[in-house]
Amino acid sequence: MDKIKAVFFDIDNTLYDSALQVEMVRSNAIKAMIEAGLDIDVEEGLQALKDIVALRGSNYQNHFDELLKKYGCEGNPRILAAGILAYHNTKLSYLVPFPDTIPTLLTLRQRGYKIGVITEGRSVKQWEKLISLGLQHFFHVVLISEEVAKQKPDLELFITAAKRIGCKPAEAVMVGDRLDKDIVGAKAAGMTTIQILKGKYSDQRPTCPGEEPDYVVPDLKGILSILK
Amino acid sequence: MDKIKAVFFDIDNTLYDSALQVEMVRSNAIKAMIEAGLDIDVEEGLQALKDIVALRGSNYQNHFDELLKKYGCEGNPRILAAGILAYHNTKLSYLVPFPDTIPTLLTLRQRGYKIGVITEGRSVKQWEKLISLGLQHFFHVVLISEEVAKQKPDLELFITAAKRIGCKPAEAVMVGDRLDKDIVGAKAAGMTTIQILKGKYSDQRPTCPGEEPDYVVPDLKGILSILK
Repeated sequence: MDKIKAVFFDIDNTLYDSALQVEMVRSNAIKAMIEAGLDIDVEEGLQALKDIVALRGSNYQNHFDELLKKYGCEGNPRILAAGILAYHNTKLSYLVPFPDTIPTLLTLRQRGYKIGVITEGRSVKQWEKLISLGLQHFFHVVLISEEVAKQKPDLELFITAAKRIGCKPAEAVMVGDRLDKDIVGAKAAGMTTIQILKGKYSDQRPTCPGEEPDYVVPDLKGILSILK
Repeated sequence: MDKIKAVFFDIDNTLYDSALQVEMVRSNAIKAMIEAGLDIDVEEGLQALKDIVALRGSNYQNHFDELLKKYGCEGNPRILAAGILAYHNTKLSYLVPFPDTIPTLLTLRQRGYKIGVITEGRSVKQWEKLISLGLQHFFHVVLISEEVAKQKPDLELFITAAKRIGCKPAEAVMVGDRLDKDIVGAKAAGMTTIQILKGKYSDQRPTCPGEEPDYVVPDLKGILSILK
């Protein structure tokens, strides 16, 4: 392989534990709504919320309103406020890097690599994550899908990121948790790919050659021995 | 006066220091946006933000967007995210009761008074405040203007609150910081009125008989010696 000059990262389940965050956010929101008067038990509420998220998608804005409607508390401002507040507080509390995220990023910079982020989602939301994680100043390039109106695994996203950081795709590594998004796209663009086994996709195994990562690591610091 | 059975409170600058909150929110948001790349100094930014709030009103949703536009950074997601994040974090950090709020409310309940809230604003937002303050379970009645589509000083708001708590207006006390809102409305409804000298309205003095409070207290615990 070409001499590697740049390392790109996904954010969710790569730089921080977003699976744990989602779990705690839902559980704390349900408990807070129960405290505010929603008459269900925690398990029932969690299941109902999961069903709504599955039906409406995770970017839908009115999960809690729909939950309240299901239990005859439509529009109750006290219960809604309790859920929203717990949601935001918990979301922020769990926006902390994995223990090895910052040491790994510092070591890569020290070794002379350019580092970048390639992520999906709304630009403001993804920047909120990087800032909360204490990482806004670390990366030479941050490319968020909204900005270029392409979604992973579109290889344009990876080619654009390489160009911006100043290398060929073949001189870059992509680290991410999702085979169907991070690995497929980066591989098609010509990057070296590393799957990190975190979050709900950690059991995912390649089903075709295009999904096969060059390397698999259990955690972020694992990439340091690959990038000697 | 009739035997007092119930005590009503405003929220902002009565149960917590919302003047300090507003000041810290603005200052932390400006600093965070500067860290994220907005090239101005803190004082200049604060003044520009104040001007925008004065022009657009405090419930306008796009203060920061307008600020960025003024300085040629329109739509910059990193700067916007930094401002929004600092705004929310700081808002929550300063949602703490005055030191004497909880002791005073507990003493009133102990003495057998019903206690309630009469406040202006959006129901969900005002409930978020009460829940963050740790006060959601304290009050026998919470009446928020959105619910009845009346604004202070409309006396309907005060009459409705008294009815819900189970007393005549003449058997109730209203505690608030604003003469033109809390005192005028409660007095017109027939309540005993107490002005609390907190926040930016603490220098306000009555300009007509309808604005004259029955009592003035420097802080919340001051009402305990009035309500013997």
